[in-house]
Amino acid sequence: MRCAAGMDEFALIAELFAPLTDRCGAHLLDDAAVVPSSARHDRVYTTDTMIASTHFLADQPADEVAAKLARVNLSDLAAMGAEPEGYLLAIALPRSVETDWLRGFAAGLAADQDRFGWRLWGGDTTSGAARAVLTLTAIGRVPRGQALRRGGARAGDHVYVSGWIGDGLLGLDALRADRTADTGPAARYRRPEPRLALGQALRGVASACADVSDGLVADAGHIARASGVALDLDAAAVPLSPAGRASVAGDPDRLRALLTGGDDYELVFTAPPDAADAIARAAADAETPVTRIGRAHPGRRGPAVRVTDAQGHTLVIDRAGYTHGLGPAVPTPPDDARSTPSQQTRRERP
Amino acid sequence: MRCAAGMDEFALIAELFAPLTDRCGAHLLDDAAVVPSSARHDRVYTTDTMIASTHFLADQPADEVAAKLARVNLSDLAAMGAEPEGYLLAIALPRSVETDWLRGFAAGLAADQDRFGWRLWGGDTTSGAARAVLTLTAIGRVPRGQALRRGGARAGDHVYVSGWIGDGLLGLDALRADRTADTGPAARYRRPEPRLALGQALRGVASACADVSDGLVADAGHIARASGVALDLDAAAVPLSPAGRASVAGDPDRLRALLTGGDDYELVFTAPPDAADAIARAAADAETPVTRIGRAHPGRRGPAVRVTDAQGHTLVIDRAGYTHGLGPAVPTPPDDARSTPSQQTRRERP
Repeated sequence: MRCAAGMDEFALIAELFAPLTDRCGAHLLDDAAVVPSSARHDRVYTTDTMIASTHFLADQPADEVAAKLARVNLSDLAAMGAEPEGYLLAIALPRSVETDWLRGFAAGLAADQDRFGWRLWGGDTTSGAARAVLTLTAIGRVPRGQALRRGGARAGDHVYVSGWIGDGLLGLDALRADRTADTGPAARYRRPEPRLALGQALRGVASACADVSDGLVADAGHIARASGVALDLDAAAVPLSPAGRASVAGDPDRLRALLTGGDDYELVFTAPPDAADAIARAAADAETPVTRIGRAHPGRRGPAVRVTDAQGHTLVIDRAGYTHGLGPAVPTPPDDARSTPSQQTRRERP
Repeated sequence: MRCAAGMDEFALIAELFAPLTDRCGAHLLDDAAVVPSSARHDRVYTTDTMIASTHFLADQPADEVAAKLARVNLSDLAAMGAEPEGYLLAIALPRSVETDWLRGFAAGLAADQDRFGWRLWGGDTTSGAARAVLTLTAIGRVPRGQALRRGGARAGDHVYVSGWIGDGLLGLDALRADRTADTGPAARYRRPEPRLALGQALRGVASACADVSDGLVADAGHIARASGVALDLDAAAVPLSPAGRASVAGDPDRLRALLTGGDDYELVFTAPPDAADAIARAAADAETPVTRIGRAHPGRRGPAVRVTDAQGHTLVIDRAGYTHGLGPAVPTPPDDARSTPSQQTRRERP
């Protein structure tokens, strides 16, 4: 969050919200909280809010807004290796919102439910908000003790990312230029694809995992800080879509923008070098492309994530990503980190 | 919710949201959703939103706002007979909100945590809202199959209510007249007392239960409709605080206002006549006063809840309570009701 009084958001979380957590399985540093549920399963909880004109375009169709709200939360479950089970909705609307909008919103949720294997469990709808504020709380499960975490990366691990990076930013740009755009990056911005199958396939394989919601560099940074390691990323190895490749041709600033742009909803994860075959199998099973993009090193002074270009020069990243939410990157040591719950960072766009 | 297009809210829920649920333990008609979790426990989920200037006074202290947000949700858990476990926060704030406000908000949560035996599990904070929109998702548990429901009342059952009715409304009035008021109803409005001990003590005893958030008549109506019965309430038997008694002296309109006012966060419940002793024991164990206020009858045409005064005349209640949220009183038969999840109604005040 932006703090008018100037307090750093991470300090704010550490001071105000971390003390409200306990040491019982919840993790402030992860994409979602993990709570023991039964002898066989842990439950995974996450919540994300979208505000009209901030997190979605005010004139985006309601079914698309619903799909995005669901998928943003599902992406957090994916990053934990969890299977979706159910969700609760809290919808605060202006009094002027029309029934047709709600009809579209419900249709957008309905269209995705079977595909993602979850159902609406409950909710609360209120009017009186000046702008629509839409909150979804997602509940999933993992076999006990198998949730993917951010704090498990070790020096020597390789760094991987799924899919293409940068299409979140390109998609928003495309949509701003043409509100009817619905192919390539625009389609992926409208309906991001949560990497649920990949996340589940990475259980027992990846040493750490996060979803790319704030931007690749920022989310890799969340892993680095939670794990107490440094990550070196090779910019030339980062997978770009055809639109992304065209966009960065000869423009390093544009490449930096894609690496920090966010809203990609891919998974960035680490694994020991000897897991390369298992990762290839997981990617094949999940039918999701995975690319190796870097390596973990012992923790160091300076930036937790360093990006080098094809010539080996360090790319100066002056803004690692949007971190306006209660960010996961609380700068506490990994041991403490293991005892605090998840807080998601929401990327904002003015 | 108020629908600008004029569609009835219950019809809206039945049409739009009920189809998103499944038949797996979730209940649209209850205060919270019940989902099987382990061999021994069910988990109970509820979510409630408060909007600045709608659900709380814009100048209310932040710690009090936090306490109320927590307790409103805890009251839903109480109505299910559940023990609180954890919660997720989604806080959407205007950019101008000061760190001091957040500090007070966190302090208000912290002050209650030990008392209610729960912890923060995760959250999301965003800026960009025009007014603060605060959502809490509460998670609790009950021994398997023992959650209290709204649909279990049977003809012949007695109707009971805990504590005093009407102090929610009186407290708001007192606070509007004097923003420093903090005794009697004003104190109870500021920090309502969720009836958790009573709810848990009523497991296996009460046939149906709801919390009084929308108003006694409205919430009794939720039980009546979910159960397919009619409830007759004796206005003279409804327990009022000293301030309540003083307020209604010789003023039937005022009595009607208290019976429909809401924000009381007491429990209204039913039980067979032969459970009277068990209820007295539950009340004593929970150290919570309980009063018998009416009786359940077979379903009938006309109002689901009829209130008669001391002379046996029917009190005309033209507005049963505030039902601006996704209300629980979906007019579907009880059998269908058992398969749909919870939606809380939030009372709004302009």
